Amino acid sequence: MSQGCGSTNRITGSSFSIYPMTDLFVEIIKSSLNEVDTSKVWIKTDDVTTTVRGQMTHVFDVTRAMFLQAAKMGEHVVFQSTYSIGCPGDSAGDVYMAEDGVPLNGSQSKRIGQDVAAKFSLYPMGGGDYMDVIYSQIEEMKKQGVEVNEAHYSTRLDGDGNKVFNGLEQVFEQTEKQGSAHTVMTVTMSANSPSTKGGE
Amino acid sequence: MSQGCGSTNRITGSSFSIYPMTDLFVEIIKSSLNEVDTSKVWIKTDDVTTTVRGQMTHVFDVTRAMFLQAAKMGEHVVFQSTYSIGCPGDSAGDVYMAEDGVPLNGSQSKRIGQDVAAKFSLYPMGGGDYMDVIYSQIEEMKKQGVEVNEAHYSTRLDGDGNKVFNGLEQVFEQTEKQGSAHTVMTVTMSANSPSTKGGE
Ligand SMILES: [Ca+2]
Repeated sequence: MSQGCGSTNRITGSSFSIYPMTDLFVEIIKSSLNEVDTSKVWIKTDDVTTTVRGQMTHVFDVTRAMFLQAAKMGEHVVFQSTYSIGCPGDSAGDVYMAEDGVPLNGSQSKRIGQDVAAKFSLYPMGGGDYMDVIYSQIEEMKKQGVEVNEAHYSTRLDGDGNKVFNGLEQVFEQTEKQGSAHTVMTVTMSANSPSTKGGE
Repeated sequence: MSQGCGSTNRITGSSFSIYPMTDLFVEIIKSSLNEVDTSKVWIKTDDVTTTVRGQMTHVFDVTRAMFLQAAKMGEHVVFQSTYSIGCPGDSAGDVYMAEDGVPLNGSQSKRIGQDVAAKFSLYPMGGGDYMDVIYSQIEEMKKQGVEVNEAHYSTRLDGDGNKVFNGLEQVFEQTEKQGSAHTVMTVTMSANSPSTKGGE
């Protein structure tokens, strides 16, 4: 549960799932996992979600790579993640905080040009005012060519998957740096959807 | 975005998606939507999520019904929702707060016996101590026959879908009643998964 936290251990976690809307969903997930180097994060998968924990840069590197590798096969794939920092709940994965900061999958991910539609919500639970950080990060995303729109309970991002992930990582990192004791960010990202954008 | 809120408008919202892991995903979602009476909630669907807003009871009634109707077809289906109250962000759907409190889909949902595996996280952002509420609601779920386990960044619930939804609605409602200014609950729920429970 998410209360009573405020640990000094700044391990980042992502509880995520990838949903390929095809009969071949198992093959796509396995193939995607095969392409991604997860050796700098703690990782555990069960039948509901996968959890990765470690340094922020590696958690974003691995989740981005997992989604882009799954999406590049052209099927309709959705990624859902809750990123969390500041409320570990347990010590699993702490040893991975000693890894170096070099992302293992960045160059391979950058080769995947994939349009995505995403919605994210940021919940800084350490008190304080983070709106300036969020607004400046959103301006930065726009400069990078990501389309930004307000959605219900979230902010919508449309654009290149790598740019969208860059923006998400930046806004999460900057919020954390502002001193938020516990920050949670939820992300839903869709690729290759047969629905028209904004369609009913 | 999720800051600066604390509205007196206690409209509940759910931003949710249903992911059928099959080539027939569009048919399953359409058929499910066809079975569910959404006339007591404001509803909007785009290519990433569906948003429903209204009284808490109707928001849970509609989301439960959508998922159970989709799951009863036997395919692997995952439901993901972020429930939110206390931070409307806009006034869309306010008129639905005048509806009566009779859920429209409860009796039909109750006829669907479906085992599910769920993970939920509760984020009461109004300050205060809600742990007692959460623990007592979890004890109540156990009494109803739901299996409860701590998971990473979440609490895992295994059991009958209707009982799990009852528990989720209760814990959300009781947290709200304790005076949390803004409460967010994320839920990921899986049915008919080919993976063995807890398997790697
Ligand atoms: Ca979520």
